[in-house]
Amino acid sequence: MRSERVVGEAWWIDEAALDRIELGAGILGTGGGGNPYLGKLWVRELLRQGKTIAVVRLQDVPDDALVTSVGGMGAPVISVERLIQGHEYLTALRTLEAHIGRRVTHLVPGEIGGANSTRPLGVAAQTGLPVVDADGMGRAFPELQMDTFSIYGVPPTPAALADPRGQVALFDRIADPTTLERYARVVTIQMGGAAGYAFPPMSGADLKRYAVPATMTLAHAIGDAVLAARAGHGDPVGEVLRLCGGQRLFRGKLVDVQRRLVGGFARGVVTLDGIDGDAGRRLVIDFQNENLIARDEAGQILAVVPDLICIVAAETAEPVTTEILRYGLRVEVLGIPAPELLKTPEALAVVGPGAFGYGDTPYLPLPGRYAEGL
Amino acid sequence: MRSERVVGEAWWIDEAALDRIELGAGILGTGGGGNPYLGKLWVRELLRQGKTIAVVRLQDVPDDALVTSVGGMGAPVISVERLIQGHEYLTALRTLEAHIGRRVTHLVPGEIGGANSTRPLGVAAQTGLPVVDADGMGRAFPELQMDTFSIYGVPPTPAALADPRGQVALFDRIADPTTLERYARVVTIQMGGAAGYAFPPMSGADLKRYAVPATMTLAHAIGDAVLAARAGHGDPVGEVLRLCGGQRLFRGKLVDVQRRLVGGFARGVVTLDGIDGDAGRRLVIDFQNENLIARDEAGQILAVVPDLICIVAAETAEPVTTEILRYGLRVEVLGIPAPELLKTPEALAVVGPGAFGYGDTPYLPLPGRYAEGL
Repeated sequence: MRSERVVGEAWWIDEAALDRIELGAGILGTGGGGNPYLGKLWVRELLRQGKTIAVVRLQDVPDDALVTSVGGMGAPVISVERLIQGHEYLTALRTLEAHIGRRVTHLVPGEIGGANSTRPLGVAAQTGLPVVDADGMGRAFPELQMDTFSIYGVPPTPAALADPRGQVALFDRIADPTTLERYARVVTIQMGGAAGYAFPPMSGADLKRYAVPATMTLAHAIGDAVLAARAGHGDPVGEVLRLCGGQRLFRGKLVDVQRRLVGGFARGVVTLDGIDGDAGRRLVIDFQNENLIARDEAGQILAVVPDLICIVAAETAEPVTTEILRYGLRVEVLGIPAPELLKTPEALAVVGPGAFGYGDTPYLPLPGRYAEGL
Repeated sequence: MRSERVVGEAWWIDEAALDRIELGAGILGTGGGGNPYLGKLWVRELLRQGKTIAVVRLQDVPDDALVTSVGGMGAPVISVERLIQGHEYLTALRTLEAHIGRRVTHLVPGEIGGANSTRPLGVAAQTGLPVVDADGMGRAFPELQMDTFSIYGVPPTPAALADPRGQVALFDRIADPTTLERYARVVTIQMGGAAGYAFPPMSGADLKRYAVPATMTLAHAIGDAVLAARAGHGDPVGEVLRLCGGQRLFRGKLVDVQRRLVGGFARGVVTLDGIDGDAGRRLVIDFQNENLIARDEAGQILAVVPDLICIVAAETAEPVTTEILRYGLRVEVLGIPAPELLKTPEALAVVGPGAFGYGDTPYLPLPGRYAEGL
């Protein structure tokens, strides 16, 4: 069915759009956020069953709308190994709705980067709810409290978690989003390392105040431009940089990757030896699900969170997520300026270098501006 | 207010009864279950405020009653260090009720041993709900799935956890009680190592089928007899054994205790050197919150779970819980036969030696019978 709730200019997602969003979201995932491919297959199947997905503009969401994010929590490597079922997000949503005694009117991605860009599209197809063209990060981050909704004071609970077997956990009156992150993370680990979530319920007014706008459009535009450049023998990487206001940081070959699953996160270090113009140089990138900091052989920082550090295949701009990093890959490392909402003092306290254990590292923003409101 | 829901012969708890229940529950706690003293102070304060507590007989609970357990989850040592607030149990109860959309009509202790004997009395005082004279263990056990309700198939969820700050977690449609135990345990640890719980909601019919009957009466009778024996220069330890059908296992002096907090549990080993008639012998007791297995110097088992291994002060029968074990204490170790509901094959799979990691140890029941229906 087509949703009755869609007002203003709605954009209906088809398979071609889904392919483009997958590609763009993979790049904006900065190495993490989960591989959107499996989510895409699930959503594509729903489209082929005749389901529809409407994306509405942020400015068209009514102030009194009841909005929430739905998506997956856990280390990306788990969601590659344990295939998407699609029930867990909807179960989490329905659990949240039952608890608050109201139906949600709009869905919004918590993060446009990675798999959580496509999961709300699947739930939209299942429910007929519209998805808002916006998100809470403009990229991907590993922890729940790292979205703009939490950063700017939307209460983090009630929040629901669900696993594919229908088991649910619901949290309420949790003091702050970092505490919710701890509680939800340990339950997610017990649920096998991955769970569907629905949180936080918020008004349309709050959403419009705090969301990073037009990021579904941005992901789509990136994917579209990359596919066009590949087909027309253009420069896919150059297209990404043009759309995102980013810069090339490094061109190299992957020579080492250290990875471990710690506390439900994929943590590690990837080392690249320069090729072509960067021959003789070395780049080291630390990640926690997502890429956090890129340093050269002298320890000089080339880019650091919240700016986006994206690893893509050198010729095709295909995103290289942390779980598929392997020896010998030839890649480009791109630096993309973070959305302005992630650069305020409140935001840097939550998503700046210090929040990831780089306490002595100042945030020196990359030049340029994130492509908001593309 | 006096509850309107009390039918049949009700017993009104006063301060004297509370003192006796505290003492008896401490002994039945088999070293764990948390020290009931702090819970008693909380309940006594509620009584002094004019609140009342009715205890009703198991057979008087209507089949269509909605019953649940309320109490505390966590390592006993935490509840000694972080004083009882009393809000967390009621918050858990109200969260459970809101989720199922019905008010509970009766409370039942999940375990008569230790602090979870007095916590339902406090919630009864707060709410006016009657407490059923029964419990789910006839003793104390460290894990959620180890009560007779879970063992005999009452669904473990919905289940609510709450901390003193009002933060809540609710679990639903959890596949089995052991899974709930894992989920609730990790959240309890995140809540600071102790949380209030309310679960499982069950009918009066199920309660009457699966509960160990008259254990509040038993705890009271033990406490009453011990106090009388102390006052009259009688034999307090002998009174406990007479009421519980138990036997003396060992009389000794505590020479070593090893203790560590692992996964939210107090685990350890206590070593006793024999005195008086046991001089020259040695006893070693393993515990996980509760005492699990008592072995002599040759490794011969004197008693093992689910039978009760109770350490009490040699002259006064004052219970010695695992968190107050210390060098030099002169104690009696008592062996008390487990309730029949804990001796079936279904029960032994959950609370027998194998469930605690003693896979090669058969359960050889102590002679005699637990004082059910005293």
